Amino acid sequence: MPTTLIANGTVVNADAAVRADVLVRDGRIVALGAGPDWTADHVVDATGKLVMPGGIDAHTHLEYPVDGFSTHTADDFHTGTVAAACGGTTTVLDFVKKEPDRSLYDTYLRRRDAAAAKAVIDVGLHAIVPPRAAQPDVLDDLRRLVTEGATSWKFFMAYPGQMVEDNELLDGFELARELGVLPMVHAENGHMVAREVRRLVDSGQTAESFHLRAHGHESEAEAVHRAVVLADTIGTPLYVVHVSSAAAADEISRARAAGSRVWGETCPQYLVVAYEDYADLGEHAAAYVCSPPIRERSNQDGLWRMLATGALSTVATDHAGFCLHQPDDLPPQKMRSPGYFPKVPNGVPGIEDRLMVLWQAGVAGGLIDPCRFVDLVATRPAKLFGLFPAKGIVAVGADADLVVWDPAADHVITAAGSHMRTDYNIYEGMRVTGKPVHVFSRGEHLVDAAGLRHDTPGRGTFLTRAAPRLS
Amino acid sequence: MPTTLIANGTVVNADAAVRADVLVRDGRIVALGAGPDWTADHVVDATGKLVMPGGIDAHTHLEYPVDGFSTHTADDFHTGTVAAACGGTTTVLDFVKKEPDRSLYDTYLRRRDAAAAKAVIDVGLHAIVPPRAAQPDVLDDLRRLVTEGATSWKFFMAYPGQMVEDNELLDGFELARELGVLPMVHAENGHMVAREVRRLVDSGQTAESFHLRAHGHESEAEAVHRAVVLADTIGTPLYVVHVSSAAAADEISRARAAGSRVWGETCPQYLVVAYEDYADLGEHAAAYVCSPPIRERSNQDGLWRMLATGALSTVATDHAGFCLHQPDDLPPQKMRSPGYFPKVPNGVPGIEDRLMVLWQAGVAGGLIDPCRFVDLVATRPAKLFGLFPAKGIVAVGADADLVVWDPAADHVITAAGSHMRTDYNIYEGMRVTGKPVHVFSRGEHLVDAAGLRHDTPGRGTFLTRAAPRLS
Amino acid sequence: MPTTLIANGTVVNADAAVRADVLVRDGRIVALGAGPDWTADHVVDATGKLVMPGGIDAHTHLEYPVDGFSTHTADDFHTGTVAAACGGTTTVLDFVKKEPDRSLYDTYLRRRDAAAAKAVIDVGLHAIVPPRAAQPDVLDDLRRLVTEGATSWKFFMAYPGQMVEDNELLDGFELARELGVLPMVHAENGHMVAREVRRLVDSGQTAESFHLRAHGHESEAEAVHRAVVLADTIGTPLYVVHVSSAAAADEISRARAAGSRVWGETCPQYLVVAYEDYADLGEHAAAYVCSPPIRERSNQDGLWRMLATGALSTVATDHAGFCLHQPDDLPPQKMRSPGYFPKVPNGVPGIEDRLMVLWQAGVAGGLIDPCRFVDLVATRPAKLFGLFPAKGIVAVGADADLVVWDPAADHVITAAGSHMRTDYNIYEGMRVTGKPVHVFSRGEHLVDAAGLRHDTPGRGTFLTRAAPRLS
Amino acid sequence: MPTTLIANGTVVNADAAVRADVLVRDGRIVALGAGPDWTADHVVDATGKLVMPGGIDAHTHLEYPVDGFSTHTADDFHTGTVAAACGGTTTVLDFVKKEPDRSLYDTYLRRRDAAAAKAVIDVGLHAIVPPRAAQPDVLDDLRRLVTEGATSWKFFMAYPGQMVEDNELLDGFELARELGVLPMVHAENGHMVAREVRRLVDSGQTAESFHLRAHGHESEAEAVHRAVVLADTIGTPLYVVHVSSAAAADEISRARAAGSRVWGETCPQYLVVAYEDYADLGEHAAAYVCSPPIRERSNQDGLWRMLATGALSTVATDHAGFCLHQPDDLPPQKMRSPGYFPKVPNGVPGIEDRLMVLWQAGVAGGLIDPCRFVDLVATRPAKLFGLFPAKGIVAVGADADLVVWDPAADHVITAAGSHMRTDYNIYEGMRVTGKPVHVFSRGEHLVDAAGLRHDTPGRGTFLTRAAPRLS
Repeated sequence: MPTTLIANGTVVNADAAVRADVLVRDGRIVALGAGPDWTADHVVDATGKLVMPGGIDAHTHLEYPVDGFSTHTADDFHTGTVAAACGGTTTVLDFVKKEPDRSLYDTYLRRRDAAAAKAVIDVGLHAIVPPRAAQPDVLDDLRRLVTEGATSWKFFMAYPGQMVEDNELLDGFELARELGVLPMVHAENGHMVAREVRRLVDSGQTAESFHLRAHGHESEAEAVHRAVVLADTIGTPLYVVHVSSAAAADEISRARAAGSRVWGETCPQYLVVAYEDYADLGEHAAAYVCSPPIRERSNQDGLWRMLATGALSTVATDHAGFCLHQPDDLPPQKMRSPGYFPKVPNGVPGIEDRLMVLWQAGVAGGLIDPCRFVDLVATRPAKLFGLFPAKGIVAVGADADLVVWDPAADHVITAAGSHMRTDYNIYEGMRVTGKPVHVFSRGEHLVDAAGLRHDTPGRGTFLTRAAPRLS
Repeated sequence: MPTTLIANGTVVNADAAVRADVLVRDGRIVALGAGPDWTADHVVDATGKLVMPGGIDAHTHLEYPVDGFSTHTADDFHTGTVAAACGGTTTVLDFVKKEPDRSLYDTYLRRRDAAAAKAVIDVGLHAIVPPRAAQPDVLDDLRRLVTEGATSWKFFMAYPGQMVEDNELLDGFELARELGVLPMVHAENGHMVAREVRRLVDSGQTAESFHLRAHGHESEAEAVHRAVVLADTIGTPLYVVHVSSAAAADEISRARAAGSRVWGETCPQYLVVAYEDYADLGEHAAAYVCSPPIRERSNQDGLWRMLATGALSTVATDHAGFCLHQPDDLPPQKMRSPGYFPKVPNGVPGIEDRLMVLWQAGVAGGLIDPCRFVDLVATRPAKLFGLFPAKGIVAVGADADLVVWDPAADHVITAAGSHMRTDYNIYEGMRVTGKPVHVFSRGEHLVDAAGLRHDTPGRGTFLTRAAPRLS
Repeated sequence: MPTTLIANGTVVNADAAVRADVLVRDGRIVALGAGPDWTADHVVDATGKLVMPGGIDAHTHLEYPVDGFSTHTADDFHTGTVAAACGGTTTVLDFVKKEPDRSLYDTYLRRRDAAAAKAVIDVGLHAIVPPRAAQPDVLDDLRRLVTEGATSWKFFMAYPGQMVEDNELLDGFELARELGVLPMVHAENGHMVAREVRRLVDSGQTAESFHLRAHGHESEAEAVHRAVVLADTIGTPLYVVHVSSAAAADEISRARAAGSRVWGETCPQYLVVAYEDYADLGEHAAAYVCSPPIRERSNQDGLWRMLATGALSTVATDHAGFCLHQPDDLPPQKMRSPGYFPKVPNGVPGIEDRLMVLWQAGVAGGLIDPCRFVDLVATRPAKLFGLFPAKGIVAVGADADLVVWDPAADHVITAAGSHMRTDYNIYEGMRVTGKPVHVFSRGEHLVDAAGLRHDTPGRGTFLTRAAPRLS
Repeated sequence: MPTTLIANGTVVNADAAVRADVLVRDGRIVALGAGPDWTADHVVDATGKLVMPGGIDAHTHLEYPVDGFSTHTADDFHTGTVAAACGGTTTVLDFVKKEPDRSLYDTYLRRRDAAAAKAVIDVGLHAIVPPRAAQPDVLDDLRRLVTEGATSWKFFMAYPGQMVEDNELLDGFELARELGVLPMVHAENGHMVAREVRRLVDSGQTAESFHLRAHGHESEAEAVHRAVVLADTIGTPLYVVHVSSAAAADEISRARAAGSRVWGETCPQYLVVAYEDYADLGEHAAAYVCSPPIRERSNQDGLWRMLATGALSTVATDHAGFCLHQPDDLPPQKMRSPGYFPKVPNGVPGIEDRLMVLWQAGVAGGLIDPCRFVDLVATRPAKLFGLFPAKGIVAVGADADLVVWDPAADHVITAAGSHMRTDYNIYEGMRVTGKPVHVFSRGEHLVDAAGLRHDTPGRGTFLTRAAPRLS
């Protein structure tokens, strides 16, 4: 059986960085060694480079329906996973939202098949728990989905049609605890947000940049607080997706300090982009509209500090790309309703940029070290979403999902130079030092310095995930 | 060069547990592998066992003078390190307290030589920063000590003759920050403690068990709060030794949640022994007298919860053994002043029991998992005290300080069955499931199922430590 | 015009206690003086007594429908106000709950007329804001009710049929702010309570004492937290009725410390009665069933401490009496469904006992002083509910609603000796020192040492109240 | 005996504002009434005016030695109390600092006599507790001073020569509790301040405006935290003088929310003046140098918020005036050491301006109402310092210390127009609406619209004060 040796690099895990060669066979890491005279069929020299576990993006929306299925995101499971791989991400966890005329379970199976048919890297799916009104027997479906590998379920605390009330959270959390599932919440108080939207619309303040005003810090912080109380009452751990407000992160931090088992995810757009960057763009501010919103620059320090406290434990993208200029082959995108923020499809692209942006701002910026970087983008997501230690670590027995990272390589992020379908990039022109030069997926050498070596749709594996590991 | 192979075990690190063989050469781990057909000069079968990094006890007092040098602890660097090794600990970090007629620097060198001459495992030394009055030029000595490997300095916030005021903390913290040293504090408000001692003595409440009353939760919590404020002001990280009060741990937890870089250490005696265990022992309560005191049983839950929050990051022993029945060859021990707690030498033994007790109460008790166990007893101390990744991890390139742990082996802890010099054991009669069966120090097979294989004084290495790693 | 002089007493206001005579004319206080030689038509000697403003019970339920109007409380506006007056209370604020086939506004007018026709002391009404589903145009009614004197509105955060969601709270709070109305909340998370009820019923745990278990501390504390966030978002003050849990009071305390304008009310039953008092009474535990529940004794200390912090600012009764033994002339009372707590009518009597119980436990018990007593039972309610300084203070120009209190008089509380219609008393047998010996309502000498002097239905005035005073 | 009638005004107390005439005889208020036809020897018409209790300035430094007695403040007990009276203040509480060659007790008697001989209004004295080193038997003196009316003692937590350590705080607090004395603290961590001063001096940053930098928010907040812990341990209430930092006020607020009995005082200079006002004044910044310092403008909002929470309960001046231009008849004043902040005498004048400045910024500014104003400047100080209800309230039996306040009168604050000896005013040019038009001290009409009517030295009374009233 053919073997691969990644030689002379520094292996970086969440815990430690050590000089070690990595020997791969049958898609898995079989040995790590210092200075042995191992041979292999395929040798990649990693001198001066870092060998890290492939990135895990725990929050993406590929070929994803929005606004009641009236449109969908621009990237499908093929273009999206190609872009992910080129950026150093080897696993993507996307979502299943119940389709109108189909049960959650059936939707899950369909979406699983779509992902398996197109993805070039491994893909898994979180289930989104619809309101009881939309599917009265949804708890039965959730129970079955665990056996299909959906060991994490997201609940929306906001948004008409998706929002669940506290009784549904309680019932869902209880089933999650019983089955060893990790509940996730989109934490915004939907009533507060809806009221602000209405007030803004009523007063004619509908320009794109007013989107921020509808999503106050308090509505996010309140929802986090309440979700934690409910989860603690049930006795279940909790994962808060895309924390955007430092005040909300602070709620998590205090809850953790008091002993609650809660983890927060944030995204690069909240860490390095700010409201000030799009406030004056007029209709083009639509390019930055996502929920929760990209907030004031003064909010960023708090998020970085919460990365230090551990209140924020993962960095995902919430990748949900829409084109700014309407392409012919896609349903209405960002500009479908200029000047009226409530109708702008929510979401920003970033699946390809995540590692480079976080490395630049965080590691090159001196705020986090490479081990913490690996923890945020790979190890912690692997643990929380039932993939560890098969993924998220460079260890004997793990999948050979590996990134060889050149900390000295320069790159400029552009929409034109990316593999995402979107026609703009919120990091356009950002110079980074540090980027992936080789990417392996289950031992297959998918990307090298010259770019993508394979893009065979369906070479990725659909992941049936285990229970979360919480420590 | 001879090689050792530890085969068929499960390697447990702070991050992950994976099936892997461990190949050792020249005292270091040279390779980890799954299923290779490696050969070695010496093969240890670890089937069904866990292979963990050797324990690091970051807080011991061997041949240690107390009460103004009027007596000293019972174990010396030889008996103490033999006991440590038998319990799975391969590194001990002890303290240097300036001798009356000798500078701190000179005392350090003497003590270093004593340790190097007697220890059977690796030993390092923290420096204790004396009050300025005791040595006006102590900052100069501290600067020199860093080059001797003392990259951690302890400050006493309590106790006549050792206690430093805030200005000395500030000056010391500032030098520590400049030199990359980790400051440690014994956090009790000495004024509050001294006042309570005086009140108790004045009212005739001098029996041994009144010791507890002199050391209130508030005096510990206040000192932690103040130390954190001072450290934050300077911009230095901080390590709080032997946190005994849940209220104090809670201060750490809240400070961490707010972004402070502070770590707490606790000890097995605070986690599993309680005031109720010795309150009625009369003079023999002296056996349990240590500072901070072993507190009420109701305090234990909070400590365990704080182990979960990370407010408590390490478990050390504060091993300071004194005999209960006076031996001929030692200066006055526990019973030198029966019925008068202020004169009881402070300290309890435990250097040999730490891993077994924590495993039993924590891992077998379902409160922590084996990875967290490793983190608490080895990985985090290694990081904080400048030994990582040479120690504290089973990784390629690391020192082969290894413990093969049998999670199914039964054992009963007794004074008679231990290697410590003390004639009692605060865990006497405790049944544990899980104990070390092989211990390696820098690749040397020091302990096996039959017990100690070598006890050559001085085979251990004196450790000149690097700067702390904080992530 | 006839005048009354209350001579030689000590006037106790929230602020100060001073020796002063009180001269009354036309139902109002016209002068206060020390040592003048005033004369009057009617002189009451108050030597050795305290002259205090009449009590204001801001939370009662007289002839009040419960459980969807299937039954109602035992006291009507006549018996209830007679009992109040005999206990030293001269103003009662009751509630209006929309009747099924009648708008809130029309129900209010009917209830106002019923109160005015029967009450022997002054009465006002808070409006209860029904769910929007029950009356879509309720905000219009609320706006009209302000002009009828309903300057305080209660929102239920729990209970099927009464519970409002956050959007209704937000809309209601906003209107309240616009109109200068004080919003009140029954703060329990209805979803959490309903879930616990269901779990208890499902597991057959339906005995009366299980009522406590359905109403956790967390559900009360969470609701308080959320209500404060919503009120702060709108910028309105907030009043939390019947705070029963120290954890909930603590939320108020912390919110106040952070600058939120929130006030808490508690009740004597939470301060001096405990779960332990009724846990073993079997079906007769129904006598103690109210919501939130009378909690564990360990909870009481926290409530008293929060009375000190100001988190709890008023003491009302939540008087809602039901007979334990079914009388012929009332609909089903406490025992209508023995052994099944969800059907027990909620509520306990106490309108007559409030001042004596709080004086005994608080003032005689050394926890509060007479000035604070007056503040809790009269001054603060008067301020918050738009009655100050006409009521709640012994001052020139104020209504002559006065109590002459004998701090040395002994009394034993019994159901038999009270004027309430209920056939039991949760304070049965409680000995108190301190009780009212004279009560004046708008200058009329209503009660003297021999008891009630007048009980003319309708002599009381219906109160159209002004906006709250918040300082 | 001659009587005075203040007719037709609105009496404003902390609790309520009511229309009432005030009848005065023998220096005391003998009656309050609405619409009586009282006559008097002297009638003052207060139509359209407010009748308030005279202001109590609980923190002044008249003829006060500083810097080891090398200089003293500009105003003596005569000029200072004249200025106070003209500003509506009828009671001044000053301090006694032990003189070098005299015991605290003897210094107190001397200073008492000096005050009694010169003051035109009532004056009391707080004792300052010197370090034990300065007077070993100071506790004996303190015990005797209580009988002389010194029922409040201040402890310095900062400043060489005055600073006490925690053991002295504990001993002092304990004696205070025993004797019913209110301990006061100047809360700054002296070690932190001293270190910053040294660092600034060492780096040549000695210009006047650097004074701010030496006194960080953290050093103030830490000291407050510690003082509260120590006071709670002893079980004594605590008063924190001149709180300048919102962070420190926040510590008080949180402590109060948790049940601690602690009160905070702030001063007008912290509420309305800011660092930005003097940062660029060069040597003339000396005019603004006081400790704690006048802080950044961004700090003011927090202080005002804490006035709302009650964390800040009193407003005093800390009046300690020094001339900017050296007068001939005074020792060295503000400019004695230009360019070197450590030698600038600390303090700002304001004894005459307090009420007008707070009214303008607070009442006219819409942040507090007139009742709260009275509470802050008169009622609460009277309660806490053992003067209530003789002072701090317009009530029957109280001293006729009264201010008739014209809320519509305009005034411009200037040094030239004031009665203080200092040659500058930190509020220079501030326009206020609202000022005193009549001032009575124990019934004597001291000030009228034309200004001071009497300035007889020694007409004021020295106050032997009772125990604090805490509710």
